Amino acid sequence: MSERIIYLNGDYIAESEAKLPVFDRGLLFADAVYEGFGILDGQIVDFIYHMDRLKRSLGELTIPMNFSIDEMFHALMRLIEKNNAKSGFLYLHVTRGAGDRAFHYHDQYVPNLFAFTQGEKFAADAMPPVIDLLTYPDLRWARRDIKSTNLLAQVMAKHAANQAGAYEALMVDDEGFVTEAGSSSFFFIKDNVLYVRPVSNEILHGITRQTMLRVAKERDISLIERNYTLDEVMAADEALITASSIYVMPVGNIDGKRIGDGKAGAFTLALREGYLAKARAEFYTPKAS
Amino acid sequence: MSERIIYLNGDYIAESEAKLPVFDRGLLFADAVYEGFGILDGQIVDFIYHMDRLKRSLGELTIPMNFSIDEMFHALMRLIEKNNAKSGFLYLHVTRGAGDRAFHYHDQYVPNLFAFTQGEKFAADAMPPVIDLLTYPDLRWARRDIKSTNLLAQVMAKHAANQAGAYEALMVDDEGFVTEAGSSSFFFIKDNVLYVRPVSNEILHGITRQTMLRVAKERDISLIERNYTLDEVMAADEALITASSIYVMPVGNIDGKRIGDGKAGAFTLALREGYLAKARAEFYTPKAS
Repeated sequence: MSERIIYLNGDYIAESEAKLPVFDRGLLFADAVYEGFGILDGQIVDFIYHMDRLKRSLGELTIPMNFSIDEMFHALMRLIEKNNAKSGFLYLHVTRGAGDRAFHYHDQYVPNLFAFTQGEKFAADAMPPVIDLLTYPDLRWARRDIKSTNLLAQVMAKHAANQAGAYEALMVDDEGFVTEAGSSSFFFIKDNVLYVRPVSNEILHGITRQTMLRVAKERDISLIERNYTLDEVMAADEALITASSIYVMPVGNIDGKRIGDGKAGAFTLALREGYLAKARAEFYTPKAS
Repeated sequence: MSERIIYLNGDYIAESEAKLPVFDRGLLFADAVYEGFGILDGQIVDFIYHMDRLKRSLGELTIPMNFSIDEMFHALMRLIEKNNAKSGFLYLHVTRGAGDRAFHYHDQYVPNLFAFTQGEKFAADAMPPVIDLLTYPDLRWARRDIKSTNLLAQVMAKHAANQAGAYEALMVDDEGFVTEAGSSSFFFIKDNVLYVRPVSNEILHGITRQTMLRVAKERDISLIERNYTLDEVMAADEALITASSIYVMPVGNIDGKRIGDGKAGAFTLALREGYLAKARAEFYTPKAS
Protein backbone atom coordinates (compact mmCIF):
# COMPACT_ATOMS: atom_id res chain seq x y z
CA MET A 1 0.00 0.00 0.00
CA SER A 2 1.37 3.39 -0.91
CA GLU A 3 1.64 6.11 1.68
CA ARG A 4 -1.10 8.60 2.39
CA ILE A 5 -0.55 11.97 0.71
CA ILE A 6 -0.49 15.03 2.98
CA TYR A 7 -1.10 18.63 1.97
CA LEU A 8 1.61 20.85 3.49
CA ASN A 9 1.93 24.54 2.61
CA GLY A 10 0.88 24.06 -1.00
CA ASP A 11 2.71 20.78 -1.61
CA TYR A 12 1.40 17.21 -1.74
CA ILE A 13 3.90 14.94 -0.02
CA ALA A 14 4.20 11.47 1.45
CA GLU A 15 3.03 11.16 5.07
CA SER A 16 6.49 10.16 6.31
CA GLU A 17 7.94 13.38 4.88
CA ALA A 18 5.30 15.75 6.30
CA LYS A 19 7.02 17.64 9.11
CA LEU A 20 7.03 21.06 10.75
CA PRO A 21 9.81 22.85 12.65
CA VAL A 22 10.02 22.23 16.39
CA PHE A 23 9.77 26.04 16.64
CA ASP A 24 6.29 26.08 15.13
CA ARG A 25 4.05 27.90 17.61
CA GLY A 26 1.44 25.20 17.15
CA LEU A 27 3.83 22.80 18.85
CA LEU A 28 5.24 25.22 21.45
CA PHE A 29 2.03 27.01 22.47
CA ALA A 30 -0.93 25.26 20.78
CA ASP A 31 -1.17 28.55 18.87
CA ALA A 32 -3.16 26.96 16.04
CA VAL A 33 -6.68 26.27 14.85
CA TYR A 34 -8.22 23.50 12.80
CA GLU A 35 -11.33 22.19 11.08
CA GLY A 36 -12.63 18.68 10.45
CA PHE A 37 -14.94 17.97 7.51
CA GLY A 38 -16.91 14.90 6.49
CA ILE A 39 -16.16 13.40 3.07
CA LEU A 40 -19.25 12.01 1.37
CA ASP A 41 -19.42 10.79 -2.24
CA GLY A 42 -15.90 12.18 -2.69
CA GLN A 43 -17.16 15.69 -1.78
CA ILE A 44 -16.59 17.90 1.27
CA VAL A 45 -19.56 18.18 3.63
CA ASP A 46 -20.67 21.58 4.97
CA PHE A 47 -17.56 23.12 3.39
CA ILE A 48 -18.55 26.79 3.47
CA TYR A 49 -19.82 26.62 7.07
CA HIS A 50 -16.56 25.06 8.26
CA MET A 51 -14.58 27.71 6.40
CA ASP A 52 -16.68 30.45 8.03
CA ARG A 53 -15.83 28.99 11.43
CA LEU A 54 -12.15 28.65 10.52
CA LYS A 55 -12.11 32.30 9.45
CA ARG A 56 -13.67 33.26 12.78
CA SER A 57 -11.18 31.15 14.80
CA LEU A 58 -8.26 32.72 12.93
CA GLY A 59 -9.72 36.18 13.46
CA GLU A 60 -10.14 35.67 17.22
CA LEU A 61 -6.42 34.84 17.42
CA THR A 62 -5.39 37.41 14.77
CA ILE A 63 -3.72 34.68 12.71
CA PRO A 64 -3.76 35.92 9.09
CA MET A 65 -5.90 33.89 6.66
CA ASN A 66 -3.51 33.82 3.74
CA PHE A 67 -5.68 31.87 1.31
CA SER A 68 -9.08 32.32 -0.29
CA ILE A 69 -12.04 30.02 0.32
CA ASP A 70 -11.94 28.80 -3.26
CA GLU A 71 -8.16 28.27 -3.28
CA MET A 72 -8.56 26.08 -0.20
CA PHE A 73 -11.51 24.25 -1.74
CA HIS A 74 -9.46 23.32 -4.80
CA ALA A 75 -6.44 22.33 -2.67
CA LEU A 76 -8.54 20.09 -0.43
CA MET A 77 -10.43 18.51 -3.35
CA ARG A 78 -7.10 17.72 -4.97
CA LEU A 79 -5.96 16.08 -1.71
CA ILE A 80 -9.15 14.00 -1.63
CA GLU A 81 -8.56 12.90 -5.21
CA LYS A 82 -4.91 12.03 -4.60
CA ASN A 83 -5.94 9.81 -1.70
CA ASN A 84 -8.96 8.44 -3.56
CA ALA A 85 -11.03 9.28 -0.48
CA LYS A 86 -14.69 8.63 -1.34
CA SER A 87 -15.85 8.84 2.28
CA GLY A 88 -14.36 9.60 5.67
CA PHE A 89 -12.80 12.61 7.33
CA LEU A 90 -10.76 15.58 6.15
CA TYR A 91 -8.60 17.53 8.61
CA LEU A 92 -7.19 21.05 8.05
CA HIS A 93 -4.74 22.68 10.49
CA VAL A 94 -3.42 26.26 10.50
CA THR A 95 -0.68 27.35 12.92
CA ARG A 96 0.53 30.90 13.48
CA GLY A 97 3.93 29.86 12.15
CA ALA A 98 7.45 29.24 13.41
CA GLY A 99 9.91 31.54 15.16
CA ASP A 100 12.09 31.69 18.25
CA ARG A 101 10.12 30.98 21.40
CA ALA A 102 8.25 33.91 23.00
CA PHE A 103 4.65 33.87 24.16
CA HIS A 104 3.73 37.11 22.43
CA TYR A 105 3.62 37.26 18.65
CA HIS A 106 4.13 39.75 15.87
CA ASP A 107 2.95 40.25 12.30
CA GLN A 108 5.93 38.54 10.66
CA TYR A 109 4.92 34.93 11.36
CA VAL A 110 3.92 32.99 8.27
CA PRO A 111 1.18 30.43 9.00
CA ASN A 112 1.93 26.75 8.43
CA LEU A 113 -0.96 24.80 6.89
CA PHE A 114 -1.46 21.10 6.54
CA ALA A 115 -4.34 18.78 5.72
CA PHE A 116 -4.93 15.04 5.60
CA THR A 117 -7.70 12.51 5.07
CA GLN A 118 -8.80 9.61 7.25
CA GLY A 119 -11.10 6.66 6.57
CA GLU A 120 -14.69 6.66 7.77
CA LYS A 121 -15.57 5.44 11.25
CA PHE A 122 -19.13 4.36 10.41
CA ALA A 123 -20.58 3.88 6.91
CA ALA A 124 -22.68 6.98 6.22
CA ASP A 125 -25.69 5.24 4.69
CA ALA A 126 -25.81 2.15 6.89
CA MET A 127 -27.85 1.82 10.10
CA PRO A 128 -25.61 3.52 12.71
CA PRO A 129 -24.54 1.53 15.76
CA VAL A 130 -25.69 2.82 19.12
CA ILE A 131 -22.78 4.34 21.03
CA ASP A 132 -22.07 4.73 24.74
CA LEU A 133 -20.86 7.80 26.63
CA LEU A 134 -18.90 8.26 29.85
CA THR A 135 -19.35 11.45 31.86
CA TYR A 136 -16.19 13.40 32.68
CA PRO A 137 -15.54 16.82 34.26
CA ASP A 138 -15.29 19.63 31.72
CA LEU A 139 -11.74 20.89 32.38
CA ARG A 140 -11.46 23.14 29.32
CA TRP A 141 -10.50 26.79 29.08
CA ALA A 142 -12.86 29.75 28.74
CA ARG A 143 -12.71 30.15 24.93
CA ARG A 144 -14.23 26.87 23.77
CA ASP A 145 -15.80 28.76 20.87
CA ILE A 146 -12.36 28.98 19.23
CA LYS A 147 -11.56 25.69 17.49
CA SER A 148 -7.94 25.66 18.67
CA THR A 149 -5.56 22.78 19.29
CA ASN A 150 -5.64 23.38 23.08
CA LEU A 151 -7.25 19.94 23.33
CA LEU A 152 -5.63 18.24 26.31
CA ALA A 153 -8.83 18.39 28.39
CA GLN A 154 -10.65 16.61 25.56
CA VAL A 155 -7.81 14.09 25.23
CA MET A 156 -8.15 13.25 28.94
CA ALA A 157 -11.95 12.99 28.70
CA LYS A 158 -11.97 10.87 25.55
CA HIS A 159 -9.17 8.65 26.82
CA ALA A 160 -11.12 7.99 30.02
CA ALA A 161 -14.18 7.12 27.91
CA ASN A 162 -12.14 4.82 25.69
CA GLN A 163 -10.64 3.06 28.71
CA ALA A 164 -14.16 2.49 30.06
CA GLY A 165 -15.29 0.98 26.74
CA ALA A 166 -17.35 4.04 25.79
CA TYR A 167 -17.11 5.75 22.41
CA GLU A 168 -17.25 9.34 23.61
CA ALA A 169 -17.10 11.49 26.75
CA LEU A 170 -19.98 13.67 27.96
CA MET A 171 -18.53 16.70 29.67
CA VAL A 172 -20.23 18.09 32.76
CA ASP A 173 -19.38 21.36 34.50
CA ASP A 174 -18.91 22.01 38.25
CA GLU A 175 -22.61 22.73 38.72
CA GLY A 176 -23.92 19.56 37.10
CA PHE A 177 -24.74 21.11 33.74
CA VAL A 178 -23.80 19.23 30.59
CA THR A 179 -21.66 21.33 28.25
CA GLU A 180 -21.10 19.02 25.26
CA ALA A 181 -19.38 15.77 24.29
CA GLY A 182 -15.61 15.37 24.00
CA SER A 183 -15.43 16.10 20.29
CA SER A 184 -19.09 16.28 19.35
CA SER A 185 -22.27 18.22 20.09
CA PHE A 186 -24.86 16.62 22.35
CA PHE A 187 -28.66 16.65 22.13
CA PHE A 188 -31.53 14.81 23.76
CA ILE A 189 -35.22 14.23 23.05
CA LYS A 190 -37.85 14.36 25.78
CA ASP A 191 -41.59 14.24 25.09
CA ASN A 192 -41.03 14.88 21.35
CA VAL A 193 -38.92 18.01 21.99
CA LEU A 194 -35.27 18.33 20.93
CA TYR A 195 -33.05 19.92 23.61
CA VAL A 196 -29.68 21.52 22.92
CA ARG A 197 -27.41 23.91 24.78
CA PRO A 198 -27.25 27.37 23.15
CA VAL A 199 -23.97 28.47 21.61
CA SER A 200 -21.71 30.65 23.79
CA ASN A 201 -18.01 30.73 24.68
CA GLU A 202 -18.70 27.61 26.79
CA ILE A 203 -19.13 25.26 23.83
CA LEU A 204 -17.83 24.90 20.31
CA HIS A 205 -20.24 26.14 17.69
CA GLY A 206 -20.73 22.78 16.00
CA ILE A 207 -21.17 22.87 12.23
CA THR A 208 -22.91 19.50 12.03
CA ARG A 209 -25.05 20.71 14.95
CA GLN A 210 -26.02 23.84 13.01
CA THR A 211 -26.95 22.02 9.81
CA MET A 212 -28.88 19.35 11.73
CA LEU A 213 -30.85 22.08 13.54
CA ARG A 214 -31.90 23.44 10.13
CA VAL A 215 -33.16 19.94 9.29
CA ALA A 216 -35.05 19.79 12.59
CA LYS A 217 -36.67 23.14 11.86
CA GLU A 218 -37.71 22.11 8.34
CA ARG A 219 -39.30 19.00 9.82
CA ASP A 220 -41.16 21.00 12.47
CA ILE A 221 -39.41 19.29 15.36
CA SER A 222 -39.90 21.39 18.50
CA LEU A 223 -36.60 22.76 19.77
CA ILE A 224 -35.64 24.11 23.18
CA GLU A 225 -32.23 25.76 23.41
CA ARG A 226 -31.18 26.08 27.05
CA ASN A 227 -28.61 24.74 29.50
CA TYR A 228 -29.60 21.44 31.11
CA THR A 229 -28.36 19.13 33.82
CA LEU A 230 -27.08 15.57 33.63
CA ASP A 231 -30.16 14.48 35.61
CA GLU A 232 -32.40 15.76 32.79
CA VAL A 233 -30.32 13.90 30.23
CA MET A 234 -30.59 10.63 32.14
CA ALA A 235 -34.39 10.90 31.99
CA ALA A 236 -34.44 11.53 28.21
CA ASP A 237 -36.29 9.44 25.63
CA GLU A 238 -33.43 9.62 23.12
CA ALA A 239 -29.91 11.06 23.12
CA LEU A 240 -27.65 11.78 20.16
CA ILE A 241 -24.35 13.38 19.22
CA THR A 242 -23.20 15.13 16.06
CA ALA A 243 -19.73 15.68 14.61
CA SER A 244 -18.29 16.04 11.15
CA SER A 245 -16.53 12.66 11.41
CA ILE A 246 -19.68 10.71 12.38
CA TYR A 247 -22.60 12.96 11.32
CA VAL A 248 -25.51 12.06 13.66
CA MET A 249 -25.16 9.10 16.04
CA PRO A 250 -27.61 7.55 18.53
CA VAL A 251 -26.51 7.23 22.17
CA GLY A 252 -27.54 4.05 24.00
CA ASN A 253 -26.00 4.33 27.44
CA ILE A 254 -24.40 7.00 29.60
CA ASP A 255 -22.20 5.74 32.44
CA GLY A 256 -23.69 2.30 31.82
CA LYS A 257 -27.28 3.50 32.33
CA ARG A 258 -29.71 3.08 29.47
CA ILE A 259 -31.19 6.19 27.80
CA GLY A 260 -34.80 5.57 26.72
CA ASP A 261 -34.98 2.00 25.44
CA GLY A 262 -31.23 2.01 24.68
CA LYS A 263 -31.81 1.72 20.94
CA ALA A 264 -31.47 4.20 18.07
CA GLY A 265 -34.55 6.44 18.42
CA ALA A 266 -36.96 7.55 15.71
CA PHE A 267 -36.04 11.24 15.99
CA THR A 268 -32.33 10.42 15.88
CA LEU A 269 -32.62 8.24 12.79
CA ALA A 270 -34.81 10.80 11.01
CA LEU A 271 -32.34 13.58 11.82
CA ARG A 272 -29.43 11.47 10.56
CA GLU A 273 -31.18 10.69 7.30
CA GLY A 274 -32.24 14.33 6.92
CA TYR A 275 -28.74 15.56 7.70
CA LEU A 276 -27.12 13.34 5.07
CA ALA A 277 -29.71 14.41 2.47
CA LYS A 278 -29.10 18.09 3.22
CA ALA A 279 -25.31 17.63 3.16
CA ARG A 280 -25.59 16.06 -0.29
CA ALA A 281 -27.90 18.82 -1.48
CA GLU A 282 -25.49 21.53 -0.34
CA PHE A 283 -22.08 20.43 -1.67
CA TYR A 284 -20.08 23.57 -2.39
CA THR A 285 -19.65 24.84 -5.92
CA PRO A 286 -16.75 27.27 -6.34
CA LYS A 287 -17.00 30.26 -8.60
CA ALA A 288 -15.74 29.57 -12.09
CA SER A 289 -12.06 30.49 -12.18
CA MET B 1 27.13 33.05 12.71
CA SER B 2 26.55 29.33 12.75
CA GLU B 3 23.12 27.91 13.48
CA ARG B 4 21.89 27.07 16.94
CA ILE B 5 22.15 23.36 17.76
CA ILE B 6 18.93 21.63 18.82
CA TYR B 7 18.63 18.38 20.78
CA LEU B 8 16.09 16.10 19.09
CA ASN B 9 15.52 12.52 20.23
CA GLY B 10 19.16 11.92 21.12
CA ASP B 11 20.69 13.79 18.19
CA TYR B 12 22.26 17.25 18.03
CA ILE B 13 21.19 18.94 14.81
CA ALA B 14 21.06 22.36 13.18
CA GLU B 15 17.98 24.42 14.03
CA SER B 16 16.76 24.49 10.42
CA GLU B 17 16.74 20.67 10.37
CA ALA B 18 14.88 20.16 13.67
CA LYS B 19 11.39 19.02 12.71
CA LEU B 20 8.63 16.74 13.97
CA PRO B 21 5.89 14.93 12.04
CA VAL B 22 2.62 16.81 11.52
CA PHE B 23 1.04 13.78 13.21
CA ASP B 24 2.85 14.42 16.47
CA ARG B 25 0.19 14.64 19.18
CA GLY B 26 1.92 17.71 20.56
CA LEU B 27 0.91 19.52 17.38
CA LEU B 28 -2.54 17.95 16.94
CA PHE B 29 -3.73 18.00 20.57
CA ALA B 30 -1.17 19.91 22.67
CA ASP B 31 -0.56 16.47 24.19
CA ALA B 32 2.87 17.45 25.50
CA VAL B 33 4.67 18.87 28.53
CA TYR B 34 7.76 21.00 28.94
CA GLU B 35 10.21 22.59 31.35
CA GLY B 36 12.22 25.79 31.23
CA PHE B 37 15.49 26.11 33.17
CA GLY B 38 17.79 29.03 33.85
CA ILE B 39 21.38 28.72 32.67
CA LEU B 40 23.85 30.38 35.04
CA ASP B 41 27.65 30.09 34.81
CA GLY B 42 27.11 27.46 32.10
CA GLN B 43 25.18 25.29 34.59
CA ILE B 44 21.48 24.36 34.83
CA VAL B 45 19.58 26.14 37.63
CA ASP B 46 17.23 24.15 39.92
CA PHE B 47 17.75 21.12 37.67
CA ILE B 48 16.47 18.40 39.98
CA TYR B 49 13.35 20.37 40.99
CA HIS B 50 12.42 20.97 37.36
CA MET B 51 12.92 17.30 36.60
CA ASP B 52 10.70 16.35 39.55
CA ARG B 53 7.97 18.58 38.11
CA LEU B 54 8.47 17.19 34.60
CA LYS B 55 8.13 13.66 36.00
CA ARG B 56 4.90 14.69 37.72
CA SER B 57 3.48 16.35 34.55
CA LEU B 58 4.28 13.24 32.50
CA GLY B 59 2.71 11.04 35.16
CA GLU B 60 -0.53 13.05 35.26
CA LEU B 61 -0.88 12.48 31.50
CA THR B 62 0.53 8.91 31.60
CA ILE B 63 3.21 9.83 29.07
CA PRO B 64 6.11 7.42 29.69
CA MET B 65 9.34 8.98 30.96
CA ASN B 66 11.77 7.04 28.79
CA PHE B 67 14.99 8.56 30.12
CA SER B 68 16.73 8.79 33.48
CA ILE B 69 17.37 12.07 35.29
CA ASP B 70 21.11 11.67 34.83
CA GLU B 71 20.85 10.75 31.14
CA MET B 72 18.87 13.93 30.59
CA PHE B 73 21.31 15.97 32.64
CA HIS B 74 24.22 14.83 30.49
CA ALA B 75 22.24 15.40 27.26
CA LEU B 76 21.25 18.93 28.27
CA MET B 77 24.75 19.84 29.51
CA ARG B 78 26.11 18.68 26.17
CA LEU B 79 23.56 20.90 24.40
CA ILE B 80 24.64 23.87 26.55
CA GLU B 81 28.27 23.21 25.67
CA LYS B 82 27.56 22.83 21.94
CA ASN B 83 25.84 26.22 21.97
CA ASN B 84 28.44 27.77 24.30
CA ALA B 85 25.55 28.99 26.45
CA LYS B 86 27.00 30.54 29.60
CA SER B 87 23.74 32.18 30.65
CA GLY B 88 20.14 32.31 29.48
CA PHE B 89 17.33 29.81 29.15
CA LEU B 90 17.09 26.09 28.44
CA TYR B 91 13.84 24.59 27.12
CA LEU B 92 12.90 20.88 27.18
CA HIS B 93 9.75 19.54 25.48
CA VAL B 94 8.27 16.02 25.63
CA THR B 95 5.30 15.03 23.45
CA ARG B 96 3.35 11.79 23.69
CA GLY B 97 4.53 10.93 20.18
CA ALA B 98 3.17 10.66 16.65
CA GLY B 99 0.42 8.49 15.20
CA ASP B 100 -2.77 8.74 13.19
CA ARG B 101 -5.19 11.27 14.65
CA ALA B 102 -7.50 10.08 17.45
CA PHE B 103 -8.10 11.89 20.73
CA HIS B 104 -7.58 8.77 22.87
CA TYR B 105 -4.13 7.26 23.12
CA HIS B 106 -2.53 3.89 23.68
CA ASP B 107 0.73 2.53 25.06
CA GLN B 108 2.50 2.27 21.71
CA TYR B 109 3.28 5.96 21.23
CA VAL B 110 6.98 6.78 21.48
CA PRO B 111 7.59 10.23 23.02
CA ASN B 112 9.35 12.87 20.93
CA LEU B 113 11.85 14.98 22.89
CA PHE B 114 13.56 18.17 21.94
CA ALA B 115 15.53 20.88 23.74
CA PHE B 116 17.07 24.22 22.85
CA THR B 117 18.82 27.18 24.47
CA GLN B 118 18.00 30.87 24.30
CA GLY B 119 19.99 33.95 25.31
CA GLU B 120 19.33 35.71 28.61
CA LYS B 121 16.66 38.42 28.85
CA PHE B 122 18.28 40.31 31.76
CA ALA B 123 21.87 39.90 32.99
CA ALA B 124 21.66 37.75 36.14
CA ASP B 125 24.08 39.74 38.29
CA ALA B 126 23.17 43.25 37.15
CA MET B 127 20.58 45.48 38.84
CA PRO B 128 17.27 44.24 37.35
CA PRO B 129 15.05 46.72 35.51
CA VAL B 130 11.61 47.34 36.98
CA ILE B 131 8.94 45.73 34.82
CA ASP B 132 5.29 46.57 34.22
CA LEU B 133 2.28 44.24 34.22
CA LEU B 134 -1.11 44.37 32.51
CA THR B 135 -4.08 42.59 34.09
CA TYR B 136 -5.92 40.10 31.90
CA PRO B 137 -8.71 37.58 32.56
CA ASP B 138 -7.43 34.12 33.48
CA LEU B 139 -8.92 32.02 30.66
CA ARG B 140 -6.96 28.82 31.35
CA TRP B 141 -8.19 25.27 31.86
CA ALA B 142 -8.66 23.50 35.19
CA ARG B 143 -5.31 21.65 35.31
CA ARG B 144 -2.86 24.53 35.49
CA ASP B 145 -0.67 22.39 37.75
CA ILE B 146 0.34 20.32 34.68
CA LYS B 147 3.04 22.16 32.74
CA SER B 148 1.51 21.31 29.36
CA THR B 149 1.69 23.12 26.03
CA ASN B 150 -2.01 24.11 26.22
CA LEU B 151 -0.79 27.70 26.39
CA LEU B 152 -3.12 29.69 24.17
CA ALA B 153 -4.70 31.54 27.12
CA GLN B 154 -1.22 32.63 28.20
CA VAL B 155 -0.35 33.60 24.62
CA MET B 156 -3.42 35.86 24.51
CA ALA B 157 -2.62 37.39 27.92
CA LYS B 158 1.06 37.98 27.21
CA HIS B 159 0.35 39.32 23.74
CA ALA B 160 -2.13 41.84 25.20
CA ALA B 161 0.52 42.87 27.75
CA ASN B 162 3.15 43.24 25.04
CA GLN B 163 0.81 45.33 22.89
CA ALA B 164 0.22 47.63 25.89
CA GLY B 165 3.97 48.04 26.44
CA ALA B 166 3.99 45.85 29.56
CA TYR B 167 6.46 43.00 30.07
CA GLU B 168 4.07 40.45 31.56
CA ALA B 169 0.35 39.78 32.15
CA LEU B 170 -1.20 39.44 35.62
CA MET B 171 -4.07 36.98 35.40
CA VAL B 172 -7.21 37.63 37.43
CA ASP B 173 -10.11 35.20 37.85
CA ASP B 174 -13.87 35.91 37.55
CA GLU B 175 -14.10 36.82 41.24
CA GLY B 176 -11.29 39.37 41.27
CA PHE B 177 -8.64 37.05 42.72
CA VAL B 178 -5.18 37.12 41.21
CA THR B 179 -4.04 33.66 40.12
CA GLU B 180 -0.52 34.27 38.79
CA ALA B 181 1.34 36.03 35.99
CA GLY B 182 1.30 34.89 32.34
CA SER B 183 4.44 32.77 32.56
CA SER B 184 5.69 33.59 36.04
CA SER B 185 4.71 33.39 39.68
CA PHE B 186 3.51 36.56 41.41
CA PHE B 187 4.18 37.84 44.95
CA PHE B 188 3.70 41.06 46.85
CA ILE B 189 5.01 42.62 50.04
CA LYS B 190 2.77 44.52 52.45
CA ASP B 191 3.91 45.71 55.89
CA ASN B 192 7.06 43.53 55.71
CA VAL B 193 5.08 40.37 54.96
CA LEU B 194 5.49 38.35 51.73
CA TYR B 195 2.17 37.21 50.22
CA VAL B 196 1.80 34.37 47.73
CA ARG B 197 -1.08 32.24 46.50
CA PRO B 198 -0.84 28.62 47.72
CA VAL B 199 -0.23 25.88 45.15
CA SER B 200 -3.31 24.06 43.83
CA ASN B 201 -4.62 22.98 40.43
CA GLU B 202 -5.36 26.68 39.81
CA ILE B 203 -1.71 27.69 39.40
CA LEU B 204 1.50 26.19 38.14
CA HIS B 205 3.78 25.01 40.93
CA GLY B 206 6.61 27.39 40.14
CA ILE B 207 10.11 26.02 40.67
CA THR B 208 11.75 29.45 40.99
CA ARG B 209 8.87 30.32 43.36
CA GLN B 210 9.64 27.27 45.50
CA THR B 211 13.38 27.93 45.74
CA MET B 212 12.81 31.63 46.46
CA LEU B 213 10.40 30.72 49.27
CA ARG B 214 13.18 28.65 50.85
CA VAL B 215 15.38 31.73 50.69
CA ALA B 216 12.64 33.84 52.31
CA LYS B 217 12.28 31.29 55.09
CA GLU B 218 16.03 31.20 55.76
CA ARG B 219 15.98 34.98 55.98
CA ASP B 220 13.04 34.97 58.42
CA ILE B 221 10.79 36.91 56.08
CA SER B 222 7.19 36.50 57.24
CA LEU B 223 5.10 34.63 54.68
CA ILE B 224 1.35 34.43 54.23
CA GLU B 225 0.11 31.87 51.69
CA ARG B 226 -3.48 32.64 50.75
CA ASN B 227 -5.61 33.77 47.80
CA TYR B 228 -5.73 37.56 47.41
CA THR B 229 -7.56 40.10 45.29
CA LEU B 230 -6.25 42.57 42.76
CA ASP B 231 -7.29 45.38 45.14
CA GLU B 232 -4.89 44.03 47.77
CA VAL B 233 -2.09 43.88 45.20
CA MET B 234 -2.64 47.48 44.13
CA ALA B 235 -2.13 48.58 47.76
CA ALA B 236 1.13 46.61 48.15
CA ASP B 237 4.51 48.07 49.14
CA GLU B 238 6.39 45.91 46.61
CA ALA B 239 5.45 43.41 43.92
CA LEU B 240 7.64 40.84 42.19
CA ILE B 241 7.51 37.92 39.78
CA THR B 242 9.65 34.81 39.49
CA ALA B 243 10.35 32.53 36.51
CA SER B 244 13.25 30.38 35.42
CA SER B 245 14.01 32.71 32.50
CA ILE B 246 14.23 35.87 34.62
CA TYR B 247 14.77 34.62 38.22
CA VAL B 248 13.28 37.35 40.50
CA MET B 249 12.12 40.64 38.98
CA PRO B 250 10.69 43.81 40.57
CA VAL B 251 7.31 45.08 39.34
CA GLY B 252 6.91 48.85 39.03
CA ASN B 253 3.42 49.37 37.62
CA ILE B 254 0.26 47.35 37.10
CA ASP B 255 -2.18 48.71 34.50
CA GLY B 256 -0.17 51.92 34.59
CA LYS B 257 -0.64 52.41 38.36
CA ARG B 258 2.47 52.54 40.51
CA ILE B 259 3.06 49.81 43.11
CA GLY B 260 4.72 51.24 46.25
CA ASP B 261 7.23 53.83 45.08
CA GLY B 262 7.46 52.17 41.65
CA LYS B 263 11.10 51.18 42.16
CA ALA B 264 12.80 47.87 42.88
CA GLY B 265 12.04 47.22 46.56
CA ALA B 266 14.44 46.14 49.30
CA PHE B 267 12.72 42.76 49.86
CA THR B 268 12.67 42.06 46.13
CA LEU B 269 16.35 42.82 45.65
CA ALA B 270 17.33 40.78 48.70
CA LEU B 271 15.27 37.83 47.45
CA ARG B 272 16.83 38.07 43.97
CA GLU B 273 20.34 38.12 45.40
CA GLY B 274 19.50 35.27 47.78
CA TYR B 275 17.90 33.25 44.98
CA LEU B 276 20.94 33.53 42.71
CA ALA B 277 23.26 32.57 45.59
CA LYS B 278 21.15 29.52 46.40
CA ALA B 279 20.90 28.50 42.73
CA ARG B 280 24.69 28.61 42.47
CA ALA B 281 25.09 26.66 45.71
CA GLU B 282 22.74 23.91 44.49
CA PHE B 283 23.95 23.08 40.96
CA TYR B 284 23.22 19.41 40.33
CA THR B 285 25.95 16.83 40.51
CA PRO B 286 25.10 13.55 38.79
CA LYS B 287 26.14 10.23 40.23
CA ALA B 288 29.47 9.05 38.86
CA SER B 289 28.72 6.91 35.80
